[in-house]
Amino acid sequence: MKYTDTVAAISTPPGMGAIAMVRLSGPDALQILSTLFFRKGKPIEPSKIQHGIAMVGEVYDGEKILDEVVVTFFRAPHSYTGEDVAEVSCHGSVYIQERLMQLILDRGARLAEPGEFTLRAFMNGRMDLSQAEAVADLISSGSAGQHHLAMQQMRGGISNRLKTLRAKLLDLTSLLELELDFSQEDVELADRNELTQLLQVITQEVEPLMNSFKLGNAIKRGIPVTIAGRPNAGKSTLLNALLQEEKAIVSEIPGTTRDAIEDTVTIRGLPFRFIDTAGLREKTRDPIEAMGIERTLDKIARASVVLYLFDTSTTSLDEVKTELALLFTQLKENADVESIDNKHFILVANKIDQLIEIPHHFSEYLEMEVVFISAKRLENLEGLKEALLRSVEPFDISNQLMVTSTRHYEALSKSMDALQEAADALKQQIPTDLVAVDIRKALHHIGTITGEITTHEMLGNIFGRFCIGK
Amino acid sequence: MKYTDTVAAISTPPGMGAIAMVRLSGPDALQILSTLFFRKGKPIEPSKIQHGIAMVGEVYDGEKILDEVVVTFFRAPHSYTGEDVAEVSCHGSVYIQERLMQLILDRGARLAEPGEFTLRAFMNGRMDLSQAEAVADLISSGSAGQHHLAMQQMRGGISNRLKTLRAKLLDLTSLLELELDFSQEDVELADRNELTQLLQVITQEVEPLMNSFKLGNAIKRGIPVTIAGRPNAGKSTLLNALLQEEKAIVSEIPGTTRDAIEDTVTIRGLPFRFIDTAGLREKTRDPIEAMGIERTLDKIARASVVLYLFDTSTTSLDEVKTELALLFTQLKENADVESIDNKHFILVANKIDQLIEIPHHFSEYLEMEVVFISAKRLENLEGLKEALLRSVEPFDISNQLMVTSTRHYEALSKSMDALQEAADALKQQIPTDLVAVDIRKALHHIGTITGEITTHEMLGNIFGRFCIGK
Repeated sequence: MKYTDTVAAISTPPGMGAIAMVRLSGPDALQILSTLFFRKGKPIEPSKIQHGIAMVGEVYDGEKILDEVVVTFFRAPHSYTGEDVAEVSCHGSVYIQERLMQLILDRGARLAEPGEFTLRAFMNGRMDLSQAEAVADLISSGSAGQHHLAMQQMRGGISNRLKTLRAKLLDLTSLLELELDFSQEDVELADRNELTQLLQVITQEVEPLMNSFKLGNAIKRGIPVTIAGRPNAGKSTLLNALLQEEKAIVSEIPGTTRDAIEDTVTIRGLPFRFIDTAGLREKTRDPIEAMGIERTLDKIARASVVLYLFDTSTTSLDEVKTELALLFTQLKENADVESIDNKHFILVANKIDQLIEIPHHFSEYLEMEVVFISAKRLENLEGLKEALLRSVEPFDISNQLMVTSTRHYEALSKSMDALQEAADALKQQIPTDLVAVDIRKALHHIGTITGEITTHEMLGNIFGRFCIGK
Repeated sequence: MKYTDTVAAISTPPGMGAIAMVRLSGPDALQILSTLFFRKGKPIEPSKIQHGIAMVGEVYDGEKILDEVVVTFFRAPHSYTGEDVAEVSCHGSVYIQERLMQLILDRGARLAEPGEFTLRAFMNGRMDLSQAEAVADLISSGSAGQHHLAMQQMRGGISNRLKTLRAKLLDLTSLLELELDFSQEDVELADRNELTQLLQVITQEVEPLMNSFKLGNAIKRGIPVTIAGRPNAGKSTLLNALLQEEKAIVSEIPGTTRDAIEDTVTIRGLPFRFIDTAGLREKTRDPIEAMGIERTLDKIARASVVLYLFDTSTTSLDEVKTELALLFTQLKENADVESIDNKHFILVANKIDQLIEIPHHFSEYLEMEVVFISAKRLENLEGLKEALLRSVEPFDISNQLMVTSTRHYEALSKSMDALQEAADALKQQIPTDLVAVDIRKALHHIGTITGEITTHEMLGNIFGRFCIGK
C-alpha cells in the first residue's frame, strides 16, 4: 500500500524556541516545497532541490517574507518515512510556526495524524511494528533506563529474537501442513521429537521475556514506590531530600521538564516514581485509622516497592512490629491487593541523628531489610538508594532483552497458551491439523508484535498514542 | 574580536517533542562533532564532513547508542553565527536532549549564554545590532503585526534608514571638523545652509520614527485595552466572546500557546491585550466606590484603548453620562494618569438584544463613539473590532517603518535633542567646534542603535533577554 497524500506537522516540541521544524512527507512534498521556498526572492525549480542538501532561503506569505528558513529534502526511499520528505527549520515563533503550517496546508498537504510519520515508515517497510512503537517510548524516555529499553527495542532487539523464533516455527508448521496434503498416505514429514523440542526451546525463550514485563513496564512508567508510615515519620523530608539531590545534577541543562515528573527520582538511570500517601497524615485516636491503613492499601497495591518509614527517636521496636503486623494483616485481607510476596518491602529507620547508637539488631528482630537514615541531615541516602536498586536487581537491565509494552506482553501470553496447547496435543497424539491450528495461532500472536499481522484498529491504537509530528 | 571557545545549546523549544535540535558554534565545532558522530559504528573523519550536507548517523554514550541523529555542518563564515556551526537533530526525548548536551559539554564546549549565537552573529558582522535585537522579537512574535514589525527590523528596515542618515551627518561633520584644522584661516568648508537643511531633513525623518514608538511598542507587547464599566455590564461575556471567536481560527494547528496569552485577542493581525478590571465588580452603596474608579485608574493608565461598557437594558443615558463624567473627573485629578487625550475611549452599549429599538442618538448625546453589541449573542462583535482597529488607524503598519524598542526610542530621543542643540548653535553662529560636538553626540546615539557603538553592558542587557539556544 502506497500513501497518495502528503502530510505535514510541526515536529519540534510545542511552544516558543529559537528554532522549530515543520516536516512534510508524501508524494507532493517536493512540489509543495518548490512553491513555498524561495532563494533571493525567486522560487526554486523542483529539479534544483537535491537530496540531503541544506538550503538557506525564504518562505513568503503572499507578498511578505514570513521567515528566513533552512530546508532539507530527502528523496524516497532514503528518508525516515521512506517517502519524499522535506524538513523546514524556521524561527521558533508560535506565529511563524502556525503560518508556515497553514501555508503548507493551503498547498494541499494534510495535517499529519499523531504518529503518522512513523506509521508511514512502518507501512513502507522502514521498520517493523515493534521498532515503530519504540519510537514513542524513546521520545518519552526521561531516564537512562527508559531510554535503554526503548533504544534496544527500536534497534530491533526484541524483533530479531521473535523473528528468529517465528521463522523456526513457520518452517515446522509448513511441514506439518504439507503432511495434511498427504494425509491419506500417513506420511510424517515433521519430526515430532524435533517439534516438541522446538516448542520447549521457544517456551524457554519466551518465558524470560514475559517475566521481564513487570519490571520493563515499571521502568517505562517509573518504578512505583510507596512511602508508608505514621505521621511525622519524615516522608516528605525524605522525598524532598531524594528529589533535591538528583535535581542538582541536571540543573545546569536547560529544557528539563522537572515539573511534570517532580515525584520521580532517577537513581543510577532507573526512574523511581514515588506515590503520595497523604492519608497517613491524618490523626485520630483509633490506632488503625491513625495509621491510615485503609487509604494506603490501594497505594501499596500500585507499588513495586514499599518503603515503610518510622521515627527511631519516638517509636519502639515493638511498636514497629505491631504496626507492620497490622499492615500485613490488612494487606492480606484486602482482596484487591496483589500478593504481598510480589512487593519489595524496605523498612526505613529515620531520624538516626537523634539516636546515640544505631540499634543494629533491628533487622533480625523485624525479619526485614532495614535502612538507617536521617532524611533531614541527608545521612545514608546512598544506602537507601542501594536498597531501592537491589529491589530490581534480579534483572540485568543492560544485558537482558525486556518487554515493556502491555500489548507485547499480552501477545506473548496468548502465543504461550497456544504453544502449550500444541505441546499437549503433540503429547496426546492429537491429529496433525489440530496441532497445526494451535501453532498457527501462536504464530499469529507473535506476528502481531513485529507487525507481520496488523489490523486497522491495532495500528490506530498504537499510533494514536504518539505525539503529532512523529 | 574572534571567539576562541565553542558554545552549545538546545535550540528547539523546551520539553518533549518528536524532534529536537542541539546547536554548536565556534572553532571546535567540527572537532567535537567528529568525536561525537558515528556512521555505522565508526567515527567520521573531520575532512569527510562537508558544508551543508545532512548526514544520518549515530551518537554513542560510551558503549551504547544514545540516538540516531541527523547532523548538518556549516563552515565559517557561511553560517548563522559566521563561525563553524554544527546542528544535531535528535529524537525529542528530554533524556536524550540532556545527555547529548552533556556529551558535547564533556568534549569541551561551553553552554551558550542566552542569545549568544545571535551575539556572535553580530560580533562577526553577520547582522547589525538592530537586526540582532529583532531576532528575539521575531521569536516571541505571536501575531501578524508583531511578526511584521520584527521581520521589518530583522531585514534591516530601520538600520538602512538610520545608516543613510548617519552617513550624511558624518560627511558634514567631517567637513566641520576639517574647518577646525584651518581655524586660523577662517575657511568655511561645510556649507552652513546645507547643514541646517540636512538637520531639518534628518529631524523630519526621525520624528515619525519616534512617533511610531508608542504604537510600535504597544503592538510588540500587545495593545493594552482596559474594559471598564459597572458590575454586570457584561465585561467577562465580552472578553470570552472575543477570545472564543478568535480561538476557533487556530484550534486546528497544534503547538499554539493559547494559555499564556489567553487575554490577548488578535484582530486582523494586531494583538490587543485586554486588562482585567476586576475591581469594578465590587458592590457597595457608595456610587463612586461602586464604580470601582479608584482601582481602575491605574488599569486605565496602562491602556491605549478604554472600552467603557454599559448595560443598555438597565442604564439610562443620563446615568451613563454621570458615570463617565465621574470617571473623567477622577482621571484628570489623578496625577499618575497620563492625559486622557492620549487614550482612545470607546463606549460599548451592551445587551442590545434586550432593547426593542437601538437608540442611535446615544452617540451625539454622549459626544463619543458608541458601538452597540450583544456580547451574549455575539452580535456586532465585528463592529467593535472595527472600532478597536480604528483606534490605531493613523499608522499604516504595513508600509511604515516603526520603532518598537524602548532602547531605540531613547537613543533617537537623545540624538534629536543633540540635533536640536546643533541647529540652535548654528542659528546663533556659535563656534564650529561646539556644533561639531553636538552632531557627534547625535551620531553616537544613532550609532548605538545599529551597533557601530556598543558597550559590554549594553550588549549584556540586549542579549540577556534572549532565550538560550538563539
